[in-house]
Amino acid sequence: MTDQAPEAGPVMIVGGAEDKLGDRVILTRFVELAGGDGARIVVITTASSLGESASDVYREVFLALGASEVVGLRPLTRTEANAAAVATPLRTATGVFLTGGNQLRLSSIVAGTRLARELQAAHRRGVAIAGTSAGASALAGHMMAFGASGATPKHRMANVAEGLGILNGMIIDQHFEQRTRLGRLLSVVAGSPSLLGIGLDEDTAAIVHGNETIEVIGRGAVTIVDGSEIATDAHESRGHRPLMVSGAILHSVPTGYLFDLTTRRVRPHLTETAIARRRAMEERARGAVKRFKKRLADDAARADGGGTSSRRTRSRSSDREASE
Amino acid sequence: MTDQAPEAGPVMIVGGAEDKLGDRVILTRFVELAGGDGARIVVITTASSLGESASDVYREVFLALGASEVVGLRPLTRTEANAAAVATPLRTATGVFLTGGNQLRLSSIVAGTRLARELQAAHRRGVAIAGTSAGASALAGHMMAFGASGATPKHRMANVAEGLGILNGMIIDQHFEQRTRLGRLLSVVAGSPSLLGIGLDEDTAAIVHGNETIEVIGRGAVTIVDGSEIATDAHESRGHRPLMVSGAILHSVPTGYLFDLTTRRVRPHLTETAIARRRAMEERARGAVKRFKKRLADDAARADGGGTSSRRTRSRSSDREASE
Repeated sequence: MTDQAPEAGPVMIVGGAEDKLGDRVILTRFVELAGGDGARIVVITTASSLGESASDVYREVFLALGASEVVGLRPLTRTEANAAAVATPLRTATGVFLTGGNQLRLSSIVAGTRLARELQAAHRRGVAIAGTSAGASALAGHMMAFGASGATPKHRMANVAEGLGILNGMIIDQHFEQRTRLGRLLSVVAGSPSLLGIGLDEDTAAIVHGNETIEVIGRGAVTIVDGSEIATDAHESRGHRPLMVSGAILHSVPTGYLFDLTTRRVRPHLTETAIARRRAMEERARGAVKRFKKRLADDAARADGGGTSSRRTRSRSSDREASE
Repeated sequence: MTDQAPEAGPVMIVGGAEDKLGDRVILTRFVELAGGDGARIVVITTASSLGESASDVYREVFLALGASEVVGLRPLTRTEANAAAVATPLRTATGVFLTGGNQLRLSSIVAGTRLARELQAAHRRGVAIAGTSAGASALAGHMMAFGASGATPKHRMANVAEGLGILNGMIIDQHFEQRTRLGRLLSVVAGSPSLLGIGLDEDTAAIVHGNETIEVIGRGAVTIVDGSEIATDAHESRGHRPLMVSGAILHSVPTGYLFDLTTRRVRPHLTETAIARRRAMEERARGAVKRFKKRLADDAARADGGGTSSRRTRSRSSDREASE
């Protein structure tokens, strides 16, 4: 596959607490991205404090969803993450999943090691890579390490460390709505406005397709903070004071929408049924406008004849139009 | 005063829980706006469930801060709010303060009554008007009535009622960071993008000077949501689903800054000392740039002579420049 200049694989970042027992919208999609029935998935559990059992949960779910093989990988030191052995399971994997836990374990143990380079190479040759919670934050080049909660951005609110470098130009935060993390995301973007801020709600995922689009699936929303127009006093603030952050462009993107990374705009990602429904609606709307215009013309003709009813008819029609 | 085409009075909206015992930055400023030592203040306690004692707290503070007279006004029915008697204390007042409580009491008892009209007239003739918490929300024409908390905007998340019409073109929310109210503010602005969304943190105030600027004072920040560029699916969403809201322009404005209502941009509101300090800094920066340019020219001259050190010197100089 590497000989044919392959496309980089999709990267799925999950806000944590993804459904593992019900519809499993997110985990089902990940197995699909990893090749469906033929999927060979490596689960990296370094972030977790739960030991090997962290991979058991995902092994069970991924096998139930049709994966043919699930292998756990759990380096706990940089020596282990640099060992040649880490490469073996990744060479045949079609998907890699990073569990939650503490992302500082991923940055301090994995970032910059052989394992990180193997992950980048796997991504480049088309392997699907996903991370949930800590695992999502760590996929960025600049990793949201930890910080205080709250909606108002403050000086020294968040700490950034080196991440795994799969998604560059982004800073990723998770449990976003549930732990009120807008403030810390805004404070990081204010200090580094070229990083696109991504806030993932729980049981919600953003799928990054190449450098082109972000697709949203799941129960909540993905908050995107575009700092390209930001003005701030981040460079002259002190202590833990609220920061001045002006002109941050905010997008709250729920399931069914795409965020275009080039235009930095949201556009709908419609199913075929939805497209058909929308077309029918537009057809009806065009009919209504045509009838409305005709009525206006009729009214105008009658008004020229001296009637007084034209104004009332007209405004009633536009009221109806407005409330539809 | 009414004969001389006076300027409308300043309007101070407070996010609740303003300091009443310590520095009292906000309440001190209100007394100043109301005329300082000569201030005659009416305290409207309709929103509060605490009865007359709600005005006692503020009476004590305002008198301690130099007001010459503090009168409580507490209509509890629309009949009372329409009575000629409500006009009397307002005719001589230089400041009016609305306490917190439940803003629906203000909209259902006061909005549209004689008292509301008297408040609007007082504002027009220059009287300072302030509201805290529920009293802040109620000063708008469209009042944030109640809603769910959370950072992600959702369909049917917030309810709007008619407010007192002192501040039009705005929707005001309070206890903003403390109760995580960004979601409901975004959802209202998405549905009514011409309303400027104002979120007030606790112990923080926005002072609206005419239709020109908003000045921020106090401990937290004022969040301003400008919906003029918004795209949304608010009109086709259902149930309590997360809304798509794209392109909301967000400003987080702490003390010491002004928000310009015309340009919709933040600008510093500097004290004279700060201006002097900034000028000195700019002077030093200009000197540094001049020296830096001279060094670049010297390096270039030397490089023409065949040296290899120019590149290193140049990059070191710009590193220093960047970290200053």
